[in-house]
Amino acid sequence: MLIVQKFGGSSVANKERILNVANRIVEEYKKGNDVVVVLSAQGDTTDLLIEKALDINPKPSKRELDMLLSTGEQQSVALMSMAIHKLGYPSVSLNANQVKIESSGIYGNARIKNIATSRIKLELEKRNIVIITGFQGINNFGDITTLGRGGSDTTAVALAASLNAQLCEIYTDVDGIYTADPRIIKNACKLEEISYDEMLELASLGAKVLHNRSVELAKKYNVKLVVRSSLTVAKGTLVREESKVEKMLVSGLALDKDVSRITVVGIKDMPGMAFKVFSLLAKENIVADIIIQSVGSMRLKDISFTIKRTDLENTLYILEKNKDFLGHDSVNYDSSVVKLSVVGAGIASNPSIAAKMFEALYDVGTNIRMISTSEIKISVLIDAGDSERAAQSVHDKLMEENINLNL
Amino acid sequence: MLIVQKFGGSSVANKERILNVANRIVEEYKKGNDVVVVLSAQGDTTDLLIEKALDINPKPSKRELDMLLSTGEQQSVALMSMAIHKLGYPSVSLNANQVKIESSGIYGNARIKNIATSRIKLELEKRNIVIITGFQGINNFGDITTLGRGGSDTTAVALAASLNAQLCEIYTDVDGIYTADPRIIKNACKLEEISYDEMLELASLGAKVLHNRSVELAKKYNVKLVVRSSLTVAKGTLVREESKVEKMLVSGLALDKDVSRITVVGIKDMPGMAFKVFSLLAKENIVADIIIQSVGSMRLKDISFTIKRTDLENTLYILEKNKDFLGHDSVNYDSSVVKLSVVGAGIASNPSIAAKMFEALYDVGTNIRMISTSEIKISVLIDAGDSERAAQSVHDKLMEENINLNL
Repeated sequence: MLIVQKFGGSSVANKERILNVANRIVEEYKKGNDVVVVLSAQGDTTDLLIEKALDINPKPSKRELDMLLSTGEQQSVALMSMAIHKLGYPSVSLNANQVKIESSGIYGNARIKNIATSRIKLELEKRNIVIITGFQGINNFGDITTLGRGGSDTTAVALAASLNAQLCEIYTDVDGIYTADPRIIKNACKLEEISYDEMLELASLGAKVLHNRSVELAKKYNVKLVVRSSLTVAKGTLVREESKVEKMLVSGLALDKDVSRITVVGIKDMPGMAFKVFSLLAKENIVADIIIQSVGSMRLKDISFTIKRTDLENTLYILEKNKDFLGHDSVNYDSSVVKLSVVGAGIASNPSIAAKMFEALYDVGTNIRMISTSEIKISVLIDAGDSERAAQSVHDKLMEENINLNL
Repeated sequence: MLIVQKFGGSSVANKERILNVANRIVEEYKKGNDVVVVLSAQGDTTDLLIEKALDINPKPSKRELDMLLSTGEQQSVALMSMAIHKLGYPSVSLNANQVKIESSGIYGNARIKNIATSRIKLELEKRNIVIITGFQGINNFGDITTLGRGGSDTTAVALAASLNAQLCEIYTDVDGIYTADPRIIKNACKLEEISYDEMLELASLGAKVLHNRSVELAKKYNVKLVVRSSLTVAKGTLVREESKVEKMLVSGLALDKDVSRITVVGIKDMPGMAFKVFSLLAKENIVADIIIQSVGSMRLKDISFTIKRTDLENTLYILEKNKDFLGHDSVNYDSSVVKLSVVGAGIASNPSIAAKMFEALYDVGTNIRMISTSEIKISVLIDAGDSERAAQSVHDKLMEENINLNL
């Protein structure tokens, strides 16, 4: 069996953890499996390197930053290979250039385009454990590009897909996917399984366990993913194609604090206005999420939407600059809001879930600012001050519901 | 004009020094020159990485160590490029793989086999300052190999040769080549010029300013080398082909403390015995330096030679293991010795230099254990306790001589 294992930065932060991980890798190898390992940079190495760069140049070129940051993963893989040798097992470390992980040309946020498998297969045939740098690729110019934060998950899934691995294990500092963030919701519980689609919604809604792009890739190539802890032997959560038999109503709850609400007031009530607004934002890579349009009165209407909080300044600037073009009266915004979402394959077929969610919010006196729904998701925008109380109330109410139906 | 500039680890040890070096680089660029820069890892980065490796595995694989250590230079070049951008000038950093610096397959002590120039030339045409990682190459397997300590000098000279650079400047923490180590000999003075051959003798005899291999390369490809300080604007020392006009008698004095004397006692006085001894050592990469054979008596003779002190244990082991084969009586050795050498193009044509050297040693009561001479060198083995006094006496005597003749 061929297994791809990915370990994050905290799992290889120091000598003891490196040796601990080396032991886990060797355990799989001793069972007769082929093992390919993907590593991130140690602990806060990436942050320290960024700090060093900013100290020299507050606006470092993204190309040079990628050149600098990619050294972190290369150090991890070399040290891990030495640790495996210490345990008496054969291994070899490879960087993105040695494997040939081809990426798009965008520095700092590249995408993997292709992975050559010949060098890896050669090393596996020699019965080597193969340790590969996560987070990086080589573009058409032969330059190093990083995949953006959390990109090592994507490297692992892309490798699993390219090598037709039977399993891709993502080791992290939590022991699986929970119904909600256990640091906020005390009775959050671990899921045994979750579908790709549900995981995607959770990932994009602020559950930071898996990098979004990695789940997309896993779904596209049907890679069997397991999320588990490098510190315990707990079983973890399996992410896979939706199981038809036991469709859970709600699999999780996510709270996204990185959000601002914007309202464009008094825009003309005629076709193409929404297109105009959102194409201006799209050009600057600003993604509008929940969008609501008020019913027009006196040939004018309001358009409200949410964006990432970091995009606020830029969005306000774009709307101001294009005021004549769009012809709106004014713009107002609110950054003291959060987005609370429930995700579950059973949502579309069970309207009572939305009702239960709204009831739970009413129970704790939370006012709903905006609502957005999809086949497997209900999101509401609420005041930031209400977020934890509201999340706990919704979680409790839906847990009850789930438990009732699972009996 | 195309200039290659090399800066060592201490020249880029921190932010201030990086910005200082960036300024020097830009100065050359502003004159309209094409500038290619070679950097070592910052300060004690390499030592810290080795420490980290040894902590995980006391006998790390050389391949993995090269993978680890090569990150040090990659960080240097990325940071330097950011510093140059900060000053408002265009630059790009390249690692050994991006340039394609091809090396032999020997990890930890590789040789440069070839350097492709197309990527560098492309970047120079764009008027970029090109910053290249020293100390490393890529072997036939696509793996990273380091060139051994001081290898960045070799990278710089090899680049200058490949690119037909008009000048190769080696920046270091001393401001040139001295007639002796200024930390030991108070009145040592800086040389304006020195020939490749003299520099080679000095480098291999313990003057640690330039890496031996880099001088060999410079001689082979007739690269004009200048050694100067990155901290001052002093002119430095020019290393070039021997000037026929002003042949200096003695250009320098070197003290090599990394030496042991070995005597193989009572070996048969017949042809081939020296060959047997030294081919056994050569197989283990042990270089014997001064070799003396006593006149045979009763069909037996003694062979004495010097080796690097680090090779002592291994040499004694080899001689013991082959005692039956070589048929010697015993082996004795002495590690409390040093090798003192004078180097100069005028030595062969002026026998009085050797006489003056021996007189200077006699003046301070130093006993000479072994003597070895070449066209441009006289080396003597003396007791370690005598070394500084002896060096000062020889330096003073020969300085006098030189000054007299230069008048």
